[in-house]
Amino acid sequence: MSSSQATNSKEQHGLCPRFHKAVELVGRRWSGAIIAVLMNGALRFNELLAAVPGISDRLLTERLRELEAAGIVGREVQGGSPVRVSYSLTERGCELTGVIDALGRWAERWIAVEA
Amino acid sequence: MSSSQATNSKEQHGLCPRFHKAVELVGRRWSGAIIAVLMNGALRFNELLAAVPGISDRLLTERLRELEAAGIVGREVQGGSPVRVSYSLTERGCELTGVIDALGRWAERWIAVEA
Repeated sequence: MSSSQATNSKEQHGLCPRFHKAVELVGRRWSGAIIAVLMNGALRFNELLAAVPGISDRLLTERLRELEAAGIVGREVQGGSPVRVSYSLTERGCELTGVIDALGRWAERWIAVEA
Repeated sequence: MSSSQATNSKEQHGLCPRFHKAVELVGRRWSGAIIAVLMNGALRFNELLAAVPGISDRLLTERLRELEAAGIVGREVQGGSPVRVSYSLTERGCELTGVIDALGRWAERWIAVEA
């Protein structure tokens, strides 16, 4: 809309601080996989640990805390004994469906899987 | 289609090795930003360095090599003096548009920018 439109279109994503923050957050190692797994519904810690291949206990804890702090993942504690904690996507997290699906389609087309 | 469909739908992305490889590749620190910047056309090394905020010379070189090895970025050397090298997205790279755009829309809605 402004006189700097030509410049803006070039810098569209590269310089946009919002985009940059998003790619650093969601793109962090394991975070994308955690979000993708939670797209199918809430899971408990051990279920997440089993669903994300190769992640360690410590790193899963760390990433869940980051994603909680970013408002992408919510944590629900159910009383009883033992206490049950489950993790699920917030509204903000759910809206990443488009990103996850687009990456899934791309991967299906372009990523080879070694046997 | 098979009797394991229920299981598959749960594991859809989380366990799919293709998706996992894609998210680790594209999600690597700086890689998403480099791809996004190149969506607007070929750039030379110094232009990329200026367009991706905060990346160092060394890391840009490293990421470009990784993205080249993955067939996402192509490198064109034009003769003359000095030799000009430019980087652009391959077909495989261009097809990440959907992912980048979806993340851009999400970021616009959900990511706050500190002043």
